[in-house]
Amino acid sequence: MADPWQEAFEHAIAVARKAGEEVRDALQNEVKIMTKSSSVDLVTKTDERVEKIIISSVKEKFPTHSLIGEESVAAGEPCVFTDNPTWIIDPVDGTTNFVHGFPFVAVSIGFAVKKELEFGIVYSCLEDKMYTGRKGKGAFCNGEKLEVSDVKDINKSMIISEHGCDRNKEKVTKIFSTMQKILCIPVHGLRGSGTAATNMCLVASGAVEAFFEIGIHCWDIAAGAVIVKEAGGVLLDVNGGPFDLMSRRMVSANNRQIADRIIKEIEIFEVERDDAPKPKK
Amino acid sequence: MADPWQEAFEHAIAVARKAGEEVRDALQNEVKIMTKSSSVDLVTKTDERVEKIIISSVKEKFPTHSLIGEESVAAGEPCVFTDNPTWIIDPVDGTTNFVHGFPFVAVSIGFAVKKELEFGIVYSCLEDKMYTGRKGKGAFCNGEKLEVSDVKDINKSMIISEHGCDRNKEKVTKIFSTMQKILCIPVHGLRGSGTAATNMCLVASGAVEAFFEIGIHCWDIAAGAVIVKEAGGVLLDVNGGPFDLMSRRMVSANNRQIADRIIKEIEIFEVERDDAPKPKK
Repeated sequence: MADPWQEAFEHAIAVARKAGEEVRDALQNEVKIMTKSSSVDLVTKTDERVEKIIISSVKEKFPTHSLIGEESVAAGEPCVFTDNPTWIIDPVDGTTNFVHGFPFVAVSIGFAVKKELEFGIVYSCLEDKMYTGRKGKGAFCNGEKLEVSDVKDINKSMIISEHGCDRNKEKVTKIFSTMQKILCIPVHGLRGSGTAATNMCLVASGAVEAFFEIGIHCWDIAAGAVIVKEAGGVLLDVNGGPFDLMSRRMVSANNRQIADRIIKEIEIFEVERDDAPKPKK
Repeated sequence: MADPWQEAFEHAIAVARKAGEEVRDALQNEVKIMTKSSSVDLVTKTDERVEKIIISSVKEKFPTHSLIGEESVAAGEPCVFTDNPTWIIDPVDGTTNFVHGFPFVAVSIGFAVKKELEFGIVYSCLEDKMYTGRKGKGAFCNGEKLEVSDVKDINKSMIISEHGCDRNKEKVTKIFSTMQKILCIPVHGLRGSGTAATNMCLVASGAVEAFFEIGIHCWDIAAGAVIVKEAGGVLLDVNGGPFDLMSRRMVSANNRQIADRIIKEIEIFEVERDDAPKPKK
């Protein structure tokens, strides 16, 4: 049987590369900042411009497909996940890094059909690393096959996570408490690149054993989820249950053993689902 | 007047590059781990081998100079800082990153005369970025002049720090408490690359506004200190007093305003100085 999503897959790689080039170019010029929801949740004009480039290119080529994009949702569009072929897009994952010129900034494009992820592309554009994952066909970085780490001993692991953009005291306290408990299991170390998409690619490539976060959005992790899974990793909810793309909670790890040990330490806090109904504006 | 340290400076760049190539090569092969002081303070054979390469090369060319090297001190040699021209060497800064293949690993070479730092070389060998700084002559990365960020508003800053290798509960609690307070000033974000040398280069290049840590060693920061200062930044003790290379405490920042604001939040804990007399083995 012919592969029904080959053309979409190839298109996604091409548009991710083009988007990444735009992001790199923009970094050479002055970065203009607009306020989004708070002073720590930045969005630049580049974000919006790059999302428009991706969306218009996808709409032209695949007019019947659906799209969920970070900037479109921020602008008030609903985040509805249906059975229709759906592109899930973060034009600039790591906006704060982008604003500061910190070297991890990614274009993330996930693609789902019947709510199942078919492929994911993460282009880490300042490193010029093109990560791809495709259901049943493996994960790659610049053409090289990716495999998760084979570490099973939590004491030999390195874990990656983020503090997030929310500065609510209760949430921040739980985030730091979780990190401290994980560090003191002990593990080799904790890291944070400032982008969820890149963090997942670091799990897929074996540089870290696990990445977890509460508060991420579907566009941050849709592409990375395919890449981690196809590199041999596991995806779970932070309570150990099944991974739910819209839940804004995730543990991705090299294996179940490491994931379960991390999950024991995670202090869960409530976040609104990505697909929660929004009040009309 | 002829520059008395030009030859040493050029030699340092050449040997840092050679050392970095060794480190990159070693990463292709299996990384063998030996235990140093704890399971989280790793040292690999590469560390020792690369330090020997640097030291023998320096001793041959500059037989009257002194050397302080991380691995030599770990092996029991005294850490004595005199007025003699002194090379201060970390062959692999970011050993944990190295073991995991996390993309920040640096060779760090500082050079001091009469206890004053004359130049510093940080070769971030997986990124292939050669950072250099020389007293009175500026700081550069791959030939491009470095300048610290001009951000003065702490709320628009990004700060970098590390959890360190010590898992002593009191220290870890102070480290996390400090990080949480700084995040909630609020700042744009917290990052950690896993190497102090690279963190300082990120300050010098303007990607972050400040890096602070208690527990680092002179070989982690000697080179970076010159690079930060020559890029226009400031170096201070964590109590706001003058920077002391042997004190194992440091704040490096783009300006005094940002440094002072960070210093307000730092919970200080005791660490033994690098030049403290060691009991005879």
